[in-house]
Amino acid sequence: MRTRVADPEASNEAARFEAQKLAFAPLVFQAARVLRDTGLLERVYHVGAKGITARELAAANADAADATSATPPSLYAVQLLLEAGYAGGLLACASLHEEEPRFTITKAGVYWQKDALTRVNADFAHAVCYRPAFHLEESLRDGIPAGLRELGAFDAAATIYDVLAQLAPEVREAWFEFDHFYSDGMFDTSLDDVLAPPVRHIVDIGGNTGRFAEVCFARDATVNVTIVDLPPQVVTIEGRLASFVASGRLRTQASDVRAHDARLPAGADVYWLSQFLDCFGEEDVVTILRHVRSAMRPDSRVFIVETFWNEQRFEAARYCVIATSLYFACVANGRSRMYHSADMRRLVARAGLRVVRERHDIGLSHSLLECSRAPA
Amino acid sequence: MRTRVADPEASNEAARFEAQKLAFAPLVFQAARVLRDTGLLERVYHVGAKGITARELAAANADAADATSATPPSLYAVQLLLEAGYAGGLLACASLHEEEPRFTITKAGVYWQKDALTRVNADFAHAVCYRPAFHLEESLRDGIPAGLRELGAFDAAATIYDVLAQLAPEVREAWFEFDHFYSDGMFDTSLDDVLAPPVRHIVDIGGNTGRFAEVCFARDATVNVTIVDLPPQVVTIEGRLASFVASGRLRTQASDVRAHDARLPAGADVYWLSQFLDCFGEEDVVTILRHVRSAMRPDSRVFIVETFWNEQRFEAARYCVIATSLYFACVANGRSRMYHSADMRRLVARAGLRVVRERHDIGLSHSLLECSRAPA
Repeated sequence: MRTRVADPEASNEAARFEAQKLAFAPLVFQAARVLRDTGLLERVYHVGAKGITARELAAANADAADATSATPPSLYAVQLLLEAGYAGGLLACASLHEEEPRFTITKAGVYWQKDALTRVNADFAHAVCYRPAFHLEESLRDGIPAGLRELGAFDAAATIYDVLAQLAPEVREAWFEFDHFYSDGMFDTSLDDVLAPPVRHIVDIGGNTGRFAEVCFARDATVNVTIVDLPPQVVTIEGRLASFVASGRLRTQASDVRAHDARLPAGADVYWLSQFLDCFGEEDVVTILRHVRSAMRPDSRVFIVETFWNEQRFEAARYCVIATSLYFACVANGRSRMYHSADMRRLVARAGLRVVRERHDIGLSHSLLECSRAPA
Repeated sequence: MRTRVADPEASNEAARFEAQKLAFAPLVFQAARVLRDTGLLERVYHVGAKGITARELAAANADAADATSATPPSLYAVQLLLEAGYAGGLLACASLHEEEPRFTITKAGVYWQKDALTRVNADFAHAVCYRPAFHLEESLRDGIPAGLRELGAFDAAATIYDVLAQLAPEVREAWFEFDHFYSDGMFDTSLDDVLAPPVRHIVDIGGNTGRFAEVCFARDATVNVTIVDLPPQVVTIEGRLASFVASGRLRTQASDVRAHDARLPAGADVYWLSQFLDCFGEEDVVTILRHVRSAMRPDSRVFIVETFWNEQRFEAARYCVIATSLYFACVANGRSRMYHSADMRRLVARAGLRVVRERHDIGLSHSLLECSRAPA
């Protein structure tokens, strides 16, 4: 653990401060977001170490707004946002007691403004999770994504996957940005393992938009991929990757793999489940892995890619992974999560598979479990 | 500054962690609240240093629920809430990698569970502020409490003060708990200053529920108080403190003191404005203080009690005061705030008054400004 989450030596005062930070976190989160989206934080970043007062910042914005005929934030707005930025640790202020305090950006503020991961996380938390999270208690009590109704008038039994196409554009965009950001970095690294022995056929279960298949095709001129996913995803993939379908390298199968009678393509060299099992509760995970076991050859290899909350090297990553479980609970489906690796190993065993190799810390906080068929 | 908000020596990793904490703060806030309200945190508190696993905690709750026929949280819910408690710094876990991690409560967790101030703040943030804060950007842009519509179908021009009686019971309760918690502790201390010379008549502007008058009556057998407030508050006060009205010690005046032609009771010894001016924008503050100046004798004393964001000794208190400004912006009225003490001195001077004495750090983070009439 590099960065300690809870310091047992902390003073009472520091502990009380931590508790207050959490108590007002929603307000400070929103202010931090507005501080960024109004461009104010970018201006504080650019003035550097000399800092800027609220009055100077409001005036600078008014000048800029004159040129673009946008409405600049009022002095009142600028004051509140700078103070909230200070409270949230994004800004420092060495002159609190002076008549016109000067604010400078902190390292955390630079991450908030400039770091792509932080931005993707914050936008996801705001657009997708903020309003639904008000219903977390109901979601956990009833095992349903009770917050999803905040994002549209959907069927009561819907999951996020059913309604992706119906989400408001800014919500959908934040969702896909988050989804892609966490997977894109990891494919290349994992393929070193997957393609080490000769591989002719990979079955990608939950292939989503087909990005993994594309990386496979680019890496290996002979490998073929079959993507198994729900019908709407399959339609999208076939449109997007039509040339690979035409050349016979890409096949698709539209099925709901949670179904007890689902059948996966048989005898492939590799079965690939990347950030897929976290979308399901434990019983569904076992069902899906049993389908894999039924379809595989005795020597087929199964790869599971997940972000396990316990396997994170950095506390920042662990924090994000744990928070994502809350998203699953109150927005996505009410029952899935980012697993503990021990829980996943237990589910793998229940499905008649066994983990033969593990790699952690690949891509952005991912683990790769290589599994084989356990003796019956 | 005892506890540093932003440490310029912080590592990049620590800064990135701070940014991620803020990015997912709304989800973790909600989980921390549910962890508390489901009684799970209380159970972790009671097991002490030996800690408890999710499975043990779920089983303990199921046993307790059998006795009360309540629905216990599922293992899934318990797992997510414990992990989120860990992420939020309320729980520690020394066995992350074991099959069944054990969680213990941290000092911050004890504050979250046991400290009345923390509870009042968190309940206020959830019930009153959470949903409105989604509209902070609009509120600051347009200078209106745009989030208020999340709390009911109110008139578009309404402020929180207009609709207090129409709020849902749990929202109203959280609002009043917060309001009282921050004022009750401070009256007694301030009265040492107010009642040091003989005082026969105090005008309490914005007397709200009349609590200050009660403290005055208890402290001094001869002092009389006139409360000036809006008509609904005056009706409430007259009902609640009918005996003092009957004995002639309490008088009331129903008026909106923002009005340019408002007139305050003339010639009192003391004019008292406690946590009142923070409910108004700068121009209204000047108008109100000018009314005081017109009504006072040359030797009357004026007392202003406020929680100034810059005058806080503890960063935890400063954090809460700053966050409260955000509440004013998006829920209360769109224009008021917790002021910087230099800004308040400037407004006092504009009204023809001058600060003759200051006391800080009284009650729960309050300051007391004693003012007299400035030469014309």
